[in-house]
Amino acid sequence: MRLAILGYGNLGRGVEHAVKQNPDIDLVAIFTRRNPQDLKVNSDAKVLNVSEIADWKDKIDVLILCGGSATDLPVQTPEYAKMFNVVDSFDTHAKIPEHFANVDKSAKESGKIGIISVGWDPGLFSLNRMYANAILPEGKDYTFWGKGVSQGHSDAIRRIDGVLDAKQYTIPVEKALTAVKNCENPELTTREKHTRECFVVAKDGADKARIEKEIKEMPNYFADYDTTVHFISLDELKANHSGIPHGGCVIRTGVTAGGANNHVIEYNLKLDSNPEFTSSVLVAYARAAYRLNKEGQSGCKTVFDIPPAYLSAKSGEELRKTML
Amino acid sequence: MRLAILGYGNLGRGVEHAVKQNPDIDLVAIFTRRNPQDLKVNSDAKVLNVSEIADWKDKIDVLILCGGSATDLPVQTPEYAKMFNVVDSFDTHAKIPEHFANVDKSAKESGKIGIISVGWDPGLFSLNRMYANAILPEGKDYTFWGKGVSQGHSDAIRRIDGVLDAKQYTIPVEKALTAVKNCENPELTTREKHTRECFVVAKDGADKARIEKEIKEMPNYFADYDTTVHFISLDELKANHSGIPHGGCVIRTGVTAGGANNHVIEYNLKLDSNPEFTSSVLVAYARAAYRLNKEGQSGCKTVFDIPPAYLSAKSGEELRKTML
Repeated sequence: MRLAILGYGNLGRGVEHAVKQNPDIDLVAIFTRRNPQDLKVNSDAKVLNVSEIADWKDKIDVLILCGGSATDLPVQTPEYAKMFNVVDSFDTHAKIPEHFANVDKSAKESGKIGIISVGWDPGLFSLNRMYANAILPEGKDYTFWGKGVSQGHSDAIRRIDGVLDAKQYTIPVEKALTAVKNCENPELTTREKHTRECFVVAKDGADKARIEKEIKEMPNYFADYDTTVHFISLDELKANHSGIPHGGCVIRTGVTAGGANNHVIEYNLKLDSNPEFTSSVLVAYARAAYRLNKEGQSGCKTVFDIPPAYLSAKSGEELRKTML
Repeated sequence: MRLAILGYGNLGRGVEHAVKQNPDIDLVAIFTRRNPQDLKVNSDAKVLNVSEIADWKDKIDVLILCGGSATDLPVQTPEYAKMFNVVDSFDTHAKIPEHFANVDKSAKESGKIGIISVGWDPGLFSLNRMYANAILPEGKDYTFWGKGVSQGHSDAIRRIDGVLDAKQYTIPVEKALTAVKNCENPELTTREKHTRECFVVAKDGADKARIEKEIKEMPNYFADYDTTVHFISLDELKANHSGIPHGGCVIRTGVTAGGANNHVIEYNLKLDSNPEFTSSVLVAYARAAYRLNKEGQSGCKTVFDIPPAYLSAKSGEELRKTML
C-alpha cells in the first residue's frame, strides 16, 4: 500500500515514524506548502510541493492529511477526497456533521473513501463511548483528559504580553475520578473535573503578578478552572517541559436488572507523545481506507463505520486464532 | 426486532433484563429444554420447549444461544444457524477457529448471520487487544482477570469430598499490574499475575486440612497459583458471596519513534454481575446480526468484523453528533 502525507509538522513526522512499524505500508511521498528543499525528513519518501499533488493521483493509495482543524482540514479533506482516499484527524467536535457532509459529497463523486476525525479524541475515545453506550443503555458517560499538554492553552498563555514561552498541563481531579469509578454518578462542574497547571517563562522585567492574573482570569481557557502558575527559566522549560505527553480516560457507568447491579467500563490512555500516538491511529485507519475502497466502497466514514479487522495487517483467521 | 433466547439460566435471564433497556427490541420467545411450565420468567415472552423451535423460523429475527461452551454451543450454534440469525458467547478460545468454520458453513448455506464468541472475554477484551495491536504494532499485551468469581474454579472445589459449597475469586497481583502500567514490560509467570482466594463451606466433621491441601495442589486449577483458603459457614457464604462479580483489564504497552516514546492503552471492566453484563453485550450484537442480515450478508462473524455503529440503536448522524 502506497501512502502519502500532506503537511510535515508533528503529526506528519509521527506518520513517518509509524509507517516504519507497518511493513505492508510504504510512505512514497511527503507534500508540503513549504519549499521542499527546506524539509529534513527521516525516510526515503519523495518530498514535493503540494502544487504537484495532482500528478500523483494514480501513484498513491491513501493520503493522510496532517494539517490543523481550524483552517486546513475543512478545506483540504473535501478537496483531496476528489483525487485520493484520505484520512484526517479533524477534531472540532461541534463541526463534525458539517465536515462529514462536505467530505461525503466529494468522496462519493470521486468514488474514494474519506475517513475523518481519526485519532484518540475524537477517535478511540469516541469508539469507547459508543461501544459502552450500546452495551449499557442506562448509564452515565465521563471523559477526563490528562495529565497532558494542551497546545491551545499553552498558545493562549504565549499570547499574553510579557510571556516568552509557556506550557500548560491539563490534570484530572483525582477526587472526581474516584467518585465516578465508585458509581456515585456525580454531576461535575468544569472546575471539579480538571485543574490547569502552567509553567511560564516571563520576559526580563515583565510584571509577573499581572501575567498570573491575566492567565487565571482568561475566559473559556482558565477562568472556570483552578489554575496554578509557576514562573520558571527558559532553561528549565526546555529541560523539563519539552515533551508533548497526553492521555485521559473515558468511563461509562451503568446498571443492569433494573438497577440491581452496577458496571464500570473504563478506557485509559497514557501517551508519552500525543502526535506520535495520533499518527499511529491515522496509519491504521489508512489501511482501512485502502481496503474499503478496494472493495468498491466510497464516501465519508468515521471510526464508527469501520469493522475493527480492517485496521489490522493480520488476516481474519490469524486474528481469530491469536486475539479473540 | 424480534428476539428469542434458547436456554434460561443466568445468561438467559440476563438477556431478558437487557432487552428491557432496548426499546427497539422485543423478546418474543424463550426456548428451554425443560418443561416450559416449570420456568418462572420475568417478561411476557412465550415460553416453549425447544422441540417447537422450527415453527418459529419466520417469527424471530435473531436467536441468542445462552448455553454453555463445553457441550451446548458447539452443537447448537451451527444447528440453529440453519434457521435463524444467531449470536453466542462461545468462550473456549482454543476451539474458536473450528467453531467459526462450523457456524460459517451453516450460516452461508441458510443465508443467515452467526456472530460467535460475544461477551467480554472473548468479546470486548478481544476488540481492545486487536485495536491496540493495530495501533501500536511494537509492544506487549497483558490480560488480567478479576477481582471476580470463577465458576469453573468454584465448581472444582465443590467436587472435593467433604465440601458443601464454595466460591473462588481470581485476583490480579497489584505489583504485576503496576509494573505493566509503568511500561517495564515484565515477563510474568502464572503465579505472578493472579492469586486465588477460596471461601469454602465444609461438611460437618470433614477434614479441613485435607480439603485445603487438595485445593492448593489441584493441577491446572490451583497448583500454579498462590491460593488462600478460608473456611466459612453456609450462612456467611450466602450473605457475603452470593454475587457473580467479575472484570479485569487488557493492557497494551508500546513504543513509537523507534522506542523514544512509550504509550499505555488500558481497558478496564468492573462488573457486579458477570452474566448480566455478558447478556448486555449479546443483545447489542444481536442488533448487529439483524442489520447485517437485512443488508444481505451471511456467514459467521466475530466482533472483529462488525462495524461498531451496528451495535447502537442510534443513527449514524446521531452518533457522529453526540459521541464522536
